[in-house]
Amino acid sequence: MASKIEEYRSYRKKMNEKILASANLSIKRLYSLDTLTYQEGALSVKTKEMLGLVSSMVLRCDDCVKYHLERCYEEGVSTQEIMDIFSVANLVGGTIVIPHTRRAFEYWEELTETRPEKM
Amino acid sequence: MASKIEEYRSYRKKMNEKILASANLSIKRLYSLDTLTYQEGALSVKTKEMLGLVSSMVLRCDDCVKYHLERCYEEGVSTQEIMDIFSVANLVGGTIVIPHTRRAFEYWEELTETRPEKM
Amino acid sequence: MASKIEEYRSYRKKMNEKILASANLSIKRLYSLDTLTYQEGALSVKTKEMLGLVSSMVLRCDDCVKYHLERCYEEGVSTQEIMDIFSVANLVGGTIVIPHTRRAFEYWEELTETRPEKM
Amino acid sequence: MASKIEEYRSYRKKMNEKILASANLSIKRLYSLDTLTYQEGALSVKTKEMLGLVSSMVLRCDDCVKYHLERCYEEGVSTQEIMDIFSVANLVGGTIVIPHTRRAFEYWEELTETRPEKM
Amino acid sequence: MASKIEEYRSYRKKMNEKILASANLSIKRLYSLDTLTYQEGALSVKTKEMLGLVSSMVLRCDDCVKYHLERCYEEGVSTQEIMDIFSVANLVGGTIVIPHTRRAFEYWEELTETRPEKM
Amino acid sequence: MASKIEEYRSYRKKMNEKILASANLSIKRLYSLDTLTYQEGALSVKTKEMLGLVSSMVLRCDDCVKYHLERCYEEGVSTQEIMDIFSVANLVGGTIVIPHTRRAFEYWEELTETRPEKM
Repeated sequence: MASKIEEYRSYRKKMNEKILASANLSIKRLYSLDTLTYQEGALSVKTKEMLGLVSSMVLRCDDCVKYHLERCYEEGVSTQEIMDIFSVANLVGGTIVIPHTRRAFEYWEELTETRPEKM
Repeated sequence: MASKIEEYRSYRKKMNEKILASANLSIKRLYSLDTLTYQEGALSVKTKEMLGLVSSMVLRCDDCVKYHLERCYEEGVSTQEIMDIFSVANLVGGTIVIPHTRRAFEYWEELTETRPEKM
Repeated sequence: MASKIEEYRSYRKKMNEKILASANLSIKRLYSLDTLTYQEGALSVKTKEMLGLVSSMVLRCDDCVKYHLERCYEEGVSTQEIMDIFSVANLVGGTIVIPHTRRAFEYWEELTETRPEKM
Repeated sequence: MASKIEEYRSYRKKMNEKILASANLSIKRLYSLDTLTYQEGALSVKTKEMLGLVSSMVLRCDDCVKYHLERCYEEGVSTQEIMDIFSVANLVGGTIVIPHTRRAFEYWEELTETRPEKM
Repeated sequence: MASKIEEYRSYRKKMNEKILASANLSIKRLYSLDTLTYQEGALSVKTKEMLGLVSSMVLRCDDCVKYHLERCYEEGVSTQEIMDIFSVANLVGGTIVIPHTRRAFEYWEELTETRPEKM
Repeated sequence: MASKIEEYRSYRKKMNEKILASANLSIKRLYSLDTLTYQEGALSVKTKEMLGLVSSMVLRCDDCVKYHLERCYEEGVSTQEIMDIFSVANLVGGTIVIPHTRRAFEYWEELTETRPEKM
């Protein structure tokens, strides 16, 4: 598995476990709410994950982008669909989104090349 | 037609015309790019407008939200789908998005009550 | 009661009720989480409300600022303490926070002059 | 004098006076620093005001934009130069800057039509 | 001393010295104002540092978070109080704050494990 | 050539090429618009690059800052002029800009020490 993917996943898993071990009820519920919100509703899981991805891009959160790229990959989003999401993010958020798009595309390449198991 | 919708549309139209009359080539091309980006591609127009809406919400741009609510309405997005978009926006962007959600829902109510002609 | 306070409260109440009547589970839980997070924990309610106020100021959310100013007032925060919060917000967030500070101070003046009942 | 200009100036003046009357040393010094920073240095006052304007636009602070539009007007910035500033702001900051550009251009129109005395 | 703490401190110290050696009066005064603002006033130093921490978290500035974590540690803020600050930051700023919370908690762990001398 | 400059340039070049090879029309046009916007107009190229730099700083995009520092260097911006830009950025954007200023100054040092060929 490509190094960036593995590095991101293991750090995320390790720190989430540590935080939840010390967390108050508010933080625990926010983590639960995060899971709940992306479940199927009026919109499909795939559409919700694309919404999460574009939101993370315009807010320029690289780690959030990585997470939603993984989930989009698992939900069968194609590279051309990813490019459509990137184009909306770059238009709405401006050229400051471009450096994040570079890192996002690099991560997407690794995902599509390595076809990793689901998280 | 409800007053908020009419007020937003007429101001937007008036000022866009004034800006384009004085604009340099860069601004004119950005306006064209704005139109191009939301046209059908790998993703449908409806999905792209939902991406534009959620991006506008997490970036907390009320006028952008109004625009994409109108376009979502025209593309047949349902109230329950709008609520799914709002829930992603409020989760990702936090409670600072709530006041914008209040104004967005008020605008959506007017759109669905008045069934306005397309812009 | 001063007009700005009444206007804010009634609009907030009306739209929150409408949103919750149409909301999905995710939005309802976020509203609950909002209440839970500001309850007494390791930090007092007063301190948490001051944290909510300064966060709202640096993120430049006028309606969020109004809400936390009301709560700070109810928790007995003094005008000099409010000024200390404003100074941190203006330093960390920069001079773009100044216009929000003007509106915040105007709202605080109304709160302290009218001594409104709790929300 | 056009109403938007007068309204902005009088509110700004009134609230700044009130804030400074209650302010702690940190806030007073930040206001002084604001004045100092835009004085002539290695860069001219005109260039610094253009920097202040573009920063205010990408950060989407309408009142800050108004202030720097006034100062740019006083420093002799032309409408075509303003359009160049707007185009950088819209490119870097994305289409969420467009609604702020509409309000900025409206304010600039009033400034250039009424040729107000300096603030 | 843990490597992340040492790395952050030495880089910060080195670059601050270089910047101040070349800085104009505005930058020098901003640095002084930074020191002044966190001194005891109507609010205690501890409370002000907690305000600085939560502001840095919602604005998602990792280096600012590290600085205020160090200062909070020196002022005797407990891990449970830190968690209360994190929960307000994650609620107000949304899930995009979570990756910054992971890095913040990792830094806090190093601080509490190594009990470093004051900066 | 200093390592940070080379590392930034090669990664930027590699990923831009990959993105453009897969990009839709919207992304391609945004890249073109990026080039167009900084060409000489009513304002000089040097002034536009300074506008791009200050915008990138207040929006806290380190890679964008690096790009505009390179372009400013090529356009003959002096270190004292850079410091004036930094002081506006730190004032308008607040102390959260300071860590980005540290990295920006370090990059500027490398540029002025190594006098690299134009990109």
